[in-house]
Amino acid sequence: MIGRMRVNIRSAFFLLVISTFLVCFAFWTRCTRDIKEGPSREGIVSAKSDFDANLRFVNRGAQAYVQDFQVNQYREIECLINHEYTVPCRREDDEVYMPFSFIQKYFEVYGSIENMDGYDRFEFSHSFSKVFPPSDTYSPDGKFMSFEHYNVEVRDRVKCITATEGVPLSTQWDPEGHSYPIQIAQFALSHYSKYLSEGKPDIDILALGSKEDVVDWSVPDDCEIRSVWDKIRGSNVLELFSPDSIRSQGISLKVAEDANFAFAIDLRFVTNGSVSVAIKSDDTTFHIHYVFSKVIILSEGRDIYYGMGETRGKWIHLVRDLDKDFMKGLMQRFPKSKKANKMNNIKVLSITIRGHGWVDNITLASANHMDHFYDAANWLVNHQDSSTGGWPIMVARKLIPDQMELPPGWYSAMGQGQAMSVLVRAYLKSKNHRYLQAAVDGLRVFDVSSAQGGVKTQFANTYDWYEEYPTTPSSFVLNGFIYSLLGLYDLKQVAEGKAHVDVERIYNSGMKTLKALLLLFDSGSGTFYDLRHVTLGIAPNRARWDYHTTHINQLLQLSIIDSDPIFTKTAARWMDYMKGKRAPHN
Amino acid sequence: MIGRMRVNIRSAFFLLVISTFLVCFAFWTRCTRDIKEGPSREGIVSAKSDFDANLRFVNRGAQAYVQDFQVNQYREIECLINHEYTVPCRREDDEVYMPFSFIQKYFEVYGSIENMDGYDRFEFSHSFSKVFPPSDTYSPDGKFMSFEHYNVEVRDRVKCITATEGVPLSTQWDPEGHSYPIQIAQFALSHYSKYLSEGKPDIDILALGSKEDVVDWSVPDDCEIRSVWDKIRGSNVLELFSPDSIRSQGISLKVAEDANFAFAIDLRFVTNGSVSVAIKSDDTTFHIHYVFSKVIILSEGRDIYYGMGETRGKWIHLVRDLDKDFMKGLMQRFPKSKKANKMNNIKVLSITIRGHGWVDNITLASANHMDHFYDAANWLVNHQDSSTGGWPIMVARKLIPDQMELPPGWYSAMGQGQAMSVLVRAYLKSKNHRYLQAAVDGLRVFDVSSAQGGVKTQFANTYDWYEEYPTTPSSFVLNGFIYSLLGLYDLKQVAEGKAHVDVERIYNSGMKTLKALLLLFDSGSGTFYDLRHVTLGIAPNRARWDYHTTHINQLLQLSIIDSDPIFTKTAARWMDYMKGKRAPHN
Repeated sequence: MIGRMRVNIRSAFFLLVISTFLVCFAFWTRCTRDIKEGPSREGIVSAKSDFDANLRFVNRGAQAYVQDFQVNQYREIECLINHEYTVPCRREDDEVYMPFSFIQKYFEVYGSIENMDGYDRFEFSHSFSKVFPPSDTYSPDGKFMSFEHYNVEVRDRVKCITATEGVPLSTQWDPEGHSYPIQIAQFALSHYSKYLSEGKPDIDILALGSKEDVVDWSVPDDCEIRSVWDKIRGSNVLELFSPDSIRSQGISLKVAEDANFAFAIDLRFVTNGSVSVAIKSDDTTFHIHYVFSKVIILSEGRDIYYGMGETRGKWIHLVRDLDKDFMKGLMQRFPKSKKANKMNNIKVLSITIRGHGWVDNITLASANHMDHFYDAANWLVNHQDSSTGGWPIMVARKLIPDQMELPPGWYSAMGQGQAMSVLVRAYLKSKNHRYLQAAVDGLRVFDVSSAQGGVKTQFANTYDWYEEYPTTPSSFVLNGFIYSLLGLYDLKQVAEGKAHVDVERIYNSGMKTLKALLLLFDSGSGTFYDLRHVTLGIAPNRARWDYHTTHINQLLQLSIIDSDPIFTKTAARWMDYMKGKRAPHN
Repeated sequence: MIGRMRVNIRSAFFLLVISTFLVCFAFWTRCTRDIKEGPSREGIVSAKSDFDANLRFVNRGAQAYVQDFQVNQYREIECLINHEYTVPCRREDDEVYMPFSFIQKYFEVYGSIENMDGYDRFEFSHSFSKVFPPSDTYSPDGKFMSFEHYNVEVRDRVKCITATEGVPLSTQWDPEGHSYPIQIAQFALSHYSKYLSEGKPDIDILALGSKEDVVDWSVPDDCEIRSVWDKIRGSNVLELFSPDSIRSQGISLKVAEDANFAFAIDLRFVTNGSVSVAIKSDDTTFHIHYVFSKVIILSEGRDIYYGMGETRGKWIHLVRDLDKDFMKGLMQRFPKSKKANKMNNIKVLSITIRGHGWVDNITLASANHMDHFYDAANWLVNHQDSSTGGWPIMVARKLIPDQMELPPGWYSAMGQGQAMSVLVRAYLKSKNHRYLQAAVDGLRVFDVSSAQGGVKTQFANTYDWYEEYPTTPSSFVLNGFIYSLLGLYDLKQVAEGKAHVDVERIYNSGMKTLKALLLLFDSGSGTFYDLRHVTLGIAPNRARWDYHTTHINQLLQLSIIDSDPIFTKTAARWMDYMKGKRAPHN
């Protein structure tokens, strides 16, 4: 038994030695081969089955392991780019793989690894930004293009919405801030378009002027609140008596609102005073104070101040988006911080009144779009230069330093046109003729050449063009020109008499130019922002993708009001460019 | 002993079982890990050292194998392109590698794996074709641009160089063939520029007319050759008597030339007759026969015929590039074959004369550029329409079918201008005024509008433009316009009196236009071939890289004759585009 056992053990021993050797040899062959040639994914998958085969082989103890499997040659290969520099790439057989970090920079494209349904995928994009097709119909009291997607006030270059006039203050080209008619008009048009798109807002009435409303307020000992009849308004309002110092306790109303931040209040003060809103963000409480001051915005510690001007004694309809006011307040203190833009988790805690005054109609709503719209429309009426009909832009504009500059006080055809689109809508909604008159007055600037302080130039001494930036030499900015035409169109639809004759002539002349020159802006793979290359003989100024998208949105809008196929055809090709397609080459 | 031996065997056996198990486990761990995560090049290199470590581990028989090595995650990842389709890519850590087969097609770039110094490298190119900077100076009797690099006659669309007039016959737009003035002028300018660039040719004189030259010829019994005085030429020539049938043996001269194929012979026949050249290509002998016939070219078996026309009785200076004649003969029979273009290893065996005639100055040289140049210049003088001064193009040109078409008989500003460049050079070299007169006559077409059969149009009713293709609406082809200006420049430098006043006016007006509109052709990443997009409102026609290169070569040439910085600045940017650089975006 032992003898046989020994023989068996010996046989098993030798079998195992041979097996071990063969397994090791098989692995060694494979590994050295991998090292020499590099494996591929396929190679790796076959390694797994090789291994299974080896196990079976060990079990069976016989059969030589011979499998001449294919190995794709995955390895590094140097790529020489335009005979200028090299980029390390990868090679598998005859396919070369180039790193996206190179592709992205070289070709100006975008991409990122995204996890979808539990697995990673690489999303490659030729462009960003989105085309918003307009509605099927257009009317001068309807939505303006797709401006309901615009949020003018959250832009970095908007310092804040002033509490004096309720319009954005621009820091573009001047960090001190200036009232930029184009921005104000776009603010109006975006709120108007949102108003038409969003449907009725949620409105929470916090307080009216009746006796029942008095009881909700916390009134310290040295203060008083009562309901009184107001002759001007013809209704009961709340009269409040409190020390006017911002350090005093004031009369306050508890609120607990974390969704609707569109705040409105009617107020009239005879002493100094303030309306303050306590806002909790995460675990910190901030106070926004609307005060009688010329200071536009001031941020100190956890206090944010907005000046309502210094005029007391008359009723004011104050309309504020508290979340935006809070955000802009934080940006005053942390201008570089992205945090201010990503606020969530904020809550309105209370409203406090200080000083001697009257208040009414205190509401928190999901939106107050039409109030913002009229604030902007009124600003346009109030700030139009009566001698020219223009809305002067009080900041220097250096389109190209030393070559295309505008000193402060210039007019913009885009500003005039966008203002017309606002004013025509304000007129049609309110039937108030002062809006229409302001729009008609705005037309005069279109007949004055850039050289004489207007906005009109010509391309090749032939085609009338209305300049967003009336530089000399001309810059021919496309999107501004089209916005001016849309404003002229709006006015053409409502103006009568001489004004109609004028606006029709100016509009038709501009549209003739647009159709003749539109294709000058087609680069074959995108669009040009302007024609500076032609007038100055320099490199073209390619439109970045968001301006390219604006061009497309504008052409789609024009295609609704003008049946010339150039607009739909060109828009379709320009959309193709956003996906990497190109015009053909010969 | 047996007992201890058994114990040792048993110990060794268990050690081996455990070792085998551990090795297998280590490999299994690694393999499954690879399968899950995919190995990288680094992973593979470490696999080799892992394996060495395993061997050491087996030898030592102890120590657990624990190494937490880094594996770069090389694996397949799906790339979603513009949300439209997917491409399989590769991933290593956060880098994604995209296959060049995709990149090439998507971005219209070029690349290939090239072996350099024993290792493979991938050469990525944004464009092909080469810029040839012009000489530092320009004169109207100097090189034309860098046309010494042109080889007009080898182009596929050249059917052959006719033996009737020694000019190319074009098959572009008409497979039957037509005399295309632009091609003929470019043929002249390329040979002229080669003449100035290449220096003196090698010339092998095969036979002159003296008695000593008679002895070299093989003369069959029914034939005769003798040296005789020729009154017209004022020298001795060879007179030959032979049957004129192409099947007859003929009088022949042995040659053994395998480098110089520029053949020239002076000949005069009174009977029918032929000059035949035997050419050996690889192991086959072909015969090129120059015969008295109107047939331009005919290829039958191993015989290629070129017709010299039917006029006998006067001296002809026949100049042929035998290699080109052979190539075009082969292409007659094998039009699709690329072989004809890649001929090498050809040898001239002999020259045979049949019929009754006189011959003189038989040479084989490295080149006969000036003979070709004058053949073309003479063609231009002989084929100018005396009523208009134009060189009519007798083929229909459909630039865009149904939208931009020209019926046969049109003139081209480029044809007129290139002809001027030829004729001015011919005049300056020969002092023969008929060349200058033809150039001056060619000017008249520039003052006639496209609509009236001329070449002149206007951009925006403002800028004079001379059309390569005088379509209605205008096409504004850039390269043709610039070639016309270069021709006008050449003529301006030599014309006098009224002609000078006219050409200067036409040239200055065109240059003013070019400077005003040049940037309209800048796409920001390349150039446009024409302005069809503007006149027709369609997609731009991007210039393919060889036309883009022509634009650059032209600007560089213009910068030599005009100091406006627009030419050098623009050419520099357009060269950058060839390496993937782009104009900035805003």
